[in-house]
Amino acid sequence: MAIYTCGHTTPDSDSICSAISLAYLLNKIGREATPARQGEVNPETQFILDRFGFTAPELKTSFAGEEIFITDYSDRGQAPKDIDEATIVGIVDHHKLGDLTTSAPLECWIRPVGCTNTIVKEMYDYHKVEIPKEIAGIMMCAILSDTVIFKSPTCTDLDIKVVRELAQIAGIEDFGALGMEMFKVKSAVEGVPVRELILRDYKPFDMHGSKVGIGQLEVVDLTIFDAVKDELQADLDKLREEEGLHTAALLLTDIMKEGSEVLVSSSDASIFEKAFDKKLENGKVWIDGCLSRKKQIIPFLEPAFA
Amino acid sequence: MAIYTCGHTTPDSDSICSAISLAYLLNKIGREATPARQGEVNPETQFILDRFGFTAPELKTSFAGEEIFITDYSDRGQAPKDIDEATIVGIVDHHKLGDLTTSAPLECWIRPVGCTNTIVKEMYDYHKVEIPKEIAGIMMCAILSDTVIFKSPTCTDLDIKVVRELAQIAGIEDFGALGMEMFKVKSAVEGVPVRELILRDYKPFDMHGSKVGIGQLEVVDLTIFDAVKDELQADLDKLREEEGLHTAALLLTDIMKEGSEVLVSSSDASIFEKAFDKKLENGKVWIDGCLSRKKQIIPFLEPAFA
Ligand SMILES: [Mn+2]
Ligand SMILES: [Mn+2]
Repeated sequence: MAIYTCGHTTPDSDSICSAISLAYLLNKIGREATPARQGEVNPETQFILDRFGFTAPELKTSFAGEEIFITDYSDRGQAPKDIDEATIVGIVDHHKLGDLTTSAPLECWIRPVGCTNTIVKEMYDYHKVEIPKEIAGIMMCAILSDTVIFKSPTCTDLDIKVVRELAQIAGIEDFGALGMEMFKVKSAVEGVPVRELILRDYKPFDMHGSKVGIGQLEVVDLTIFDAVKDELQADLDKLREEEGLHTAALLLTDIMKEGSEVLVSSSDASIFEKAFDKKLENGKVWIDGCLSRKKQIIPFLEPAFA
Repeated sequence: MAIYTCGHTTPDSDSICSAISLAYLLNKIGREATPARQGEVNPETQFILDRFGFTAPELKTSFAGEEIFITDYSDRGQAPKDIDEATIVGIVDHHKLGDLTTSAPLECWIRPVGCTNTIVKEMYDYHKVEIPKEIAGIMMCAILSDTVIFKSPTCTDLDIKVVRELAQIAGIEDFGALGMEMFKVKSAVEGVPVRELILRDYKPFDMHGSKVGIGQLEVVDLTIFDAVKDELQADLDKLREEEGLHTAALLLTDIMKEGSEVLVSSSDASIFEKAFDKKLENGKVWIDGCLSRKKQIIPFLEPAFA
């Protein structure tokens, strides 16, 4: 039985690229594997796949009876609905430890680094498998994406070292330029429905019993949102109602100015305000230096719900 | 702040030895670490520590405000009571993925192998740290203990390879003989109170809402229990009542005959009987080939509670 490698719901580039890079590795060490994805490919990821000649992994949302090697998450909120009927044979991830459990031993490669693909690189080295040029390319792009070209506080020395190694294998001389090109693709929001923008990189959380949903958009210039900010705010209210969320938020991250404007819709905004010791103005606040949802939002917001 | 390395409640040799071997490794890579233990040292472990010149790690049951690198478990049932007030910086384990969660990224080295110390060896290799002779000795003994000298179905080729490497480092020519010596120490039950025997290697589980406790005693000859079996059975009933368990069981494992007699006290024994498709006789049943609680008991018993 083939193992499916698959990342989280609303897949980002790391989820898609790690599914591909991990599946290749597993096949090389004699474990039949097929990459999959739980949702649509976003424009940034499509750019990466096109750049290195890959097609998107198979779309798959049901895994009952299958073996799955999870990439880029470890919580039930981001898993397929029927994950309890699947066998989780492994997890490779770089987030906090989530609430997935298993009934049999498995392998977990979880590290506090900037990107899952940095850890997949460790797995290639452990198994002494050579990384093909194209696979190295998509792994490198995923790391540049997750670490916001090394600017994110989640970025570690290991991420930088691995990008340099992968760039060499992929034959990319100026990976910084490729990263910027990638983020420009990511910044293309014109004509995109606001709901699609909110959900493009959206993660649901269970914070001590309260449902919280947080999206993030990383762009090279925040002014592109000026015309749609009110619309985004209104749609956050709508999303919160539809999904029964306590709080819905959207991070508009300016990777050049290195900070995020956070749009917040909440049934009790004081929780958010206390968590960050900041007052919202018309449901918005600028948080200077904030680039990472994982490291600069979740660890402060979650305890505020305790 | 020093990191505490610490295994599960009712520590076995793997929990104690991995706390020591991991702490040494962390110190070597510049992370101050102190080994700890959550409970008394059992006779087998004491034999190992004496054999290689170690004293037992510090007894510590409260970790509020501390950093902890967990070894040999990943579920709350085996964690310190105040684990939520500690920061889990890492987990190295070889069991099914438990229900511990964290609010920040961490490192997890979890593998489906026979012993945590096999994975700690992988960590030494990853960090290119040389293993001292004495540390290699206790790591080797822990693997021989957890894998029942390679007889357990949990034992993998990697465990065997690592034992050979560690034996070489430790300068032990006949590791099989040392293993048998160790299991003879483990088999010494004369004069030990029955409750102490039940709890010597005891693990609590939450099986779909039902509390289940399972102890295991591995000996070289089962007849040593003949005189105390009734007393053990009566004390299992008592333990079940005291702890509000649905089921309390004790595996009497004969490592030479390669099987286990299981003593069961249950508020509904039919669950156990269905799980293993066997009838209990006077609350007892022999399961041929059963050496591993983790691999041959839990994966069958847990689904029966679903
Ligand atoms: Mn990621
Ligand atoms: Mn163990």
